Amino acid sequence: MSKKEKNTEKEIELGFGNKNYHKNTRFLNKDGSVNIRRLDGDFFRHLDLYHTFLNITWKRFIIVVLIGYMLANLFFASLYYLAGTQYFGNLSGVDERHKFTELFFFSAQTLTTVGYGFIYPKGTLVSGIAAIESMTGLLVFALATGVLYGRFSKPRASIRYSTHGVIAPYENITGFMFRIANTTQNELIESEAQVILSMNDLKTNQRVFLPLELETKKISFMALSWTIVHPIDENSPIYKYTREDLIKADAEFLILVKAINDTYSQTVYSRTSYKGHELIENAKFKPLQRTQHGNKATINLQKLDEVELQG
Amino acid sequence: MSKKEKNTEKEIELGFGNKNYHKNTRFLNKDGSVNIRRLDGDFFRHLDLYHTFLNITWKRFIIVVLIGYMLANLFFASLYYLAGTQYFGNLSGVDERHKFTELFFFSAQTLTTVGYGFIYPKGTLVSGIAAIESMTGLLVFALATGVLYGRFSKPRASIRYSTHGVIAPYENITGFMFRIANTTQNELIESEAQVILSMNDLKTNQRVFLPLELETKKISFMALSWTIVHPIDENSPIYKYTREDLIKADAEFLILVKAINDTYSQTVYSRTSYKGHELIENAKFKPLQRTQHGNKATINLQKLDEVELQG
Amino acid sequence: MSKKEKNTEKEIELGFGNKNYHKNTRFLNKDGSVNIRRLDGDFFRHLDLYHTFLNITWKRFIIVVLIGYMLANLFFASLYYLAGTQYFGNLSGVDERHKFTELFFFSAQTLTTVGYGFIYPKGTLVSGIAAIESMTGLLVFALATGVLYGRFSKPRASIRYSTHGVIAPYENITGFMFRIANTTQNELIESEAQVILSMNDLKTNQRVFLPLELETKKISFMALSWTIVHPIDENSPIYKYTREDLIKADAEFLILVKAINDTYSQTVYSRTSYKGHELIENAKFKPLQRTQHGNKATINLQKLDEVELQG
Amino acid sequence: MSKKEKNTEKEIELGFGNKNYHKNTRFLNKDGSVNIRRLDGDFFRHLDLYHTFLNITWKRFIIVVLIGYMLANLFFASLYYLAGTQYFGNLSGVDERHKFTELFFFSAQTLTTVGYGFIYPKGTLVSGIAAIESMTGLLVFALATGVLYGRFSKPRASIRYSTHGVIAPYENITGFMFRIANTTQNELIESEAQVILSMNDLKTNQRVFLPLELETKKISFMALSWTIVHPIDENSPIYKYTREDLIKADAEFLILVKAINDTYSQTVYSRTSYKGHELIENAKFKPLQRTQHGNKATINLQKLDEVELQG
Repeated sequence: MSKKEKNTEKEIELGFGNKNYHKNTRFLNKDGSVNIRRLDGDFFRHLDLYHTFLNITWKRFIIVVLIGYMLANLFFASLYYLAGTQYFGNLSGVDERHKFTELFFFSAQTLTTVGYGFIYPKGTLVSGIAAIESMTGLLVFALATGVLYGRFSKPRASIRYSTHGVIAPYENITGFMFRIANTTQNELIESEAQVILSMNDLKTNQRVFLPLELETKKISFMALSWTIVHPIDENSPIYKYTREDLIKADAEFLILVKAINDTYSQTVYSRTSYKGHELIENAKFKPLQRTQHGNKATINLQKLDEVELQG
Repeated sequence: MSKKEKNTEKEIELGFGNKNYHKNTRFLNKDGSVNIRRLDGDFFRHLDLYHTFLNITWKRFIIVVLIGYMLANLFFASLYYLAGTQYFGNLSGVDERHKFTELFFFSAQTLTTVGYGFIYPKGTLVSGIAAIESMTGLLVFALATGVLYGRFSKPRASIRYSTHGVIAPYENITGFMFRIANTTQNELIESEAQVILSMNDLKTNQRVFLPLELETKKISFMALSWTIVHPIDENSPIYKYTREDLIKADAEFLILVKAINDTYSQTVYSRTSYKGHELIENAKFKPLQRTQHGNKATINLQKLDEVELQG
Repeated sequence: MSKKEKNTEKEIELGFGNKNYHKNTRFLNKDGSVNIRRLDGDFFRHLDLYHTFLNITWKRFIIVVLIGYMLANLFFASLYYLAGTQYFGNLSGVDERHKFTELFFFSAQTLTTVGYGFIYPKGTLVSGIAAIESMTGLLVFALATGVLYGRFSKPRASIRYSTHGVIAPYENITGFMFRIANTTQNELIESEAQVILSMNDLKTNQRVFLPLELETKKISFMALSWTIVHPIDENSPIYKYTREDLIKADAEFLILVKAINDTYSQTVYSRTSYKGHELIENAKFKPLQRTQHGNKATINLQKLDEVELQG
Repeated sequence: MSKKEKNTEKEIELGFGNKNYHKNTRFLNKDGSVNIRRLDGDFFRHLDLYHTFLNITWKRFIIVVLIGYMLANLFFASLYYLAGTQYFGNLSGVDERHKFTELFFFSAQTLTTVGYGFIYPKGTLVSGIAAIESMTGLLVFALATGVLYGRFSKPRASIRYSTHGVIAPYENITGFMFRIANTTQNELIESEAQVILSMNDLKTNQRVFLPLELETKKISFMALSWTIVHPIDENSPIYKYTREDLIKADAEFLILVKAINDTYSQTVYSRTSYKGHELIENAKFKPLQRTQHGNKATINLQKLDEVELQG
């Protein structure tokens, strides 16, 4: 038996544990996230504030920062108030509530180290609290600097996948194909693709994971688009399968792509999957319209999904 | 002799120097640290404050920062005091000790650049010291920013190992097995495992290090758990060994795992070891309970250690 | 057919989509950028301010920062003005315009957290705006810190290519050669080169991409210069081609180099291309003049392009 | 001819350009730097302040920062002085020189954003200069933050080499050996060594670069020390060479080591070289003294260089 046959016929371990999965779920969501919830008794051990802040949306990030800022000022203003309003110079509030408001803004001026100094601490206790607060402010903004840098320098998914896979004539046989493109202005080089088929083996009633042979596994760089092809020849585990057969077997094509963004020397990873109902039979991807723009070729990424049905 | 036999029979160099080790020590501690103390006459050459700050606990980090802040302020307050309290505007202290306290807080306001300015330097010398102090403050908080970013962006161990290894029937032979799981919400891809057996060769009375063949050395991604298996066939250096034999030979299975956290494009390394007494014979890992939660499979990491004894 | 023949004869996929390209364009510009414009209906999804700030010139960066600073101060000064000038202490402006100017500088003092405090906010509303402004200032300067660090730590192109490639006698045959050198004081190690020939196949009238065999694909380190050679033997797709033939076929040699800057453990990528008219026939690169400077060999990078014509 | 013979007999390209080098120079200095000076007409294009600041000593770094701080304050104080001392509140200097000193410290308070505010700007021009200065201060300290983080997070050489190489009996033949150790508390894993011999070929009078076969090229981790051995058998280019022969041929063993610091997921590169006169014949490295310290093996790195002469 040739090496190739061995590879495609042998099941591979994917870290999905045992394999009699519930039907009709996806392993990979369209956005590439794994469809798994990990339970752990020890919730707080894995609470990871930094990574949370790295991944929330900008809107939430700003809301959290504003609420945190307000709560911190309420906290320190309360401490100052409890220590005694008489220990502050120039506190002019006409009543207790007004004085608290003034202390709230004194706290903001201390936390951000703006320190106008019109209102200023006179006693030892309030001076000590203010000393702690200004240092806390600096450390918290140091944290914020790290988080903001982390948010920006995080590798970002820049690969777009065609919405559908196609099963279409390919050379003298048929092939499973999908198309990807780089959506950023940075170049992606040394792109590699891996396709793993997950389906129910109807004989053994087990879930199997099979790597599929690809026509080309690696390209030097991805200037325009890349159509990734699995030739469905007699070595393929889906030889003579139709779209219906794949749906019946609850098939899912797991797609793993990695590439190097050479501007930042950063390896980026991207994943998606195609289920049987996301396939189109006897269709071919239309060429991405290219026009000559001066000396520059132009590609229209909006046409990535366009296919044309074939006789 | 086949390549496989050659690999498992030949000792490998592990950088442990000569090999007649004291008995009953571990090479690797359970947490993966190497059980070695490196002496060096030149202690200070390797004192590495940055790496120390990166690795101490948050509690210690905060204590060190607070003590450092206090000492810095005591130092600068002393300089101001020696330069002369008459060079400060609005210093209202009734006695020398009170004045020193005021200078201490003036120093804190300068170091953090909050600079209320109620108390302010008037003379050249104290203004110069304050200029140095505020710049020192900025540089120190710049350092703190770097350290905080380093603490957060440091790759963290996210792999949990089963407490015990098992020696159990595997296909038609037996196997040495252990189980690992990813405890974070980020995905680990391209995980690779390496197992090296360290034991006393009873014939030569030497410590040997032998790499063990694994059923699967690399998995594409580790969605749930991964059971790593060394098949104990006739090519295995521990063919027909029992748990007692392994304890007698002072065997230690050194485990090296590496994987890529694809959210951060970061390779993470993890290590542990199993000594003979941490093995269970004729046991099998229980499947991690999985329930369907909507469309999402659920895994309970608390069950990673659970085994069931076999006939 | 040997593996070598197969490699050079088979077309490779380069991610350039279909292959009937317009003539007389370059794929790669001399600076290594890809000669492609990517259109996308969803412009704003790919607007990437961080990466823009990372790549603009220092001059533009400073101009953008100054304009942003001015606009931010105009914005906050307007808010303060609308809230009411009576809520500020020590505002001494003789007319409205003068007062606005004072509020503009109060804003600058707040945004940068310098906070002299001669002018200070008295009411709740203006104090609140100032509290927001000072926090905004800190976050924006946190962003600036990240951008500045990103600008500096970005891997930079340090490889210079000879302006021309040469086709010259090489051992008993001829070769396509070009020369590269490291222009920085940091060492480049484990340098690898890849050359892909893109040309029109006159029989099929299609654009083909063919990898070329290199005499040496990888060098341990690039101390002086490296002359990269493709031997034009009978396995080469350009066997017996002249410079004119290459121009007629619209040939372009795509050059991809990667190396490790070992000071920063950073992989750097570099690209360029040579079109037919950038080749010189029967020329040889002159040795880079080297003199002994004390115990140090000296290389003159200005001579990288110098060739001497051969009989 | 076997692959092995081919590898060791064929010269390799090292990027050293042509090979008739001056005698008695080293390619690699003991600290691993390459003994080359690169001349370039365009000096300023390669002036790289960031990398300069990353690599100067701490002492120089602090001196440069202090001088830069003083010059910046002199510059801004001069601007303020030229704009007119009457535009500052509370300027109490008795003469012009005293007033300039006060402006110097006002500048320091502005640059560091401490902003006491006792002295404060009143006019539009001086307020504008102060607004520019405080923003400049923030950006410069943002730069400093990046540089400080860069200095600390830079991969550092942690491999120490034995001062001498030895040529000594090894199994039934002889071997060229040297010893390395990890001097840090972090573990180095997946260490790889490469040895390239550079010497004069007495027949052709050319400088040749030959890779040497190693007993072990890669070790899983370097807990204690690693003795790297090139067996001098009949395939070795220095078969039957004595120390005198190597000195006569101006031989230099170029050593390249790379390893992964797994705490920081950082690949570290290290280099050194041994010239003929740095070899000892018929010597053997003494075992590094190891004592049992509780359960921990102890290694004494000071003994890395110790050899014992052999019969």
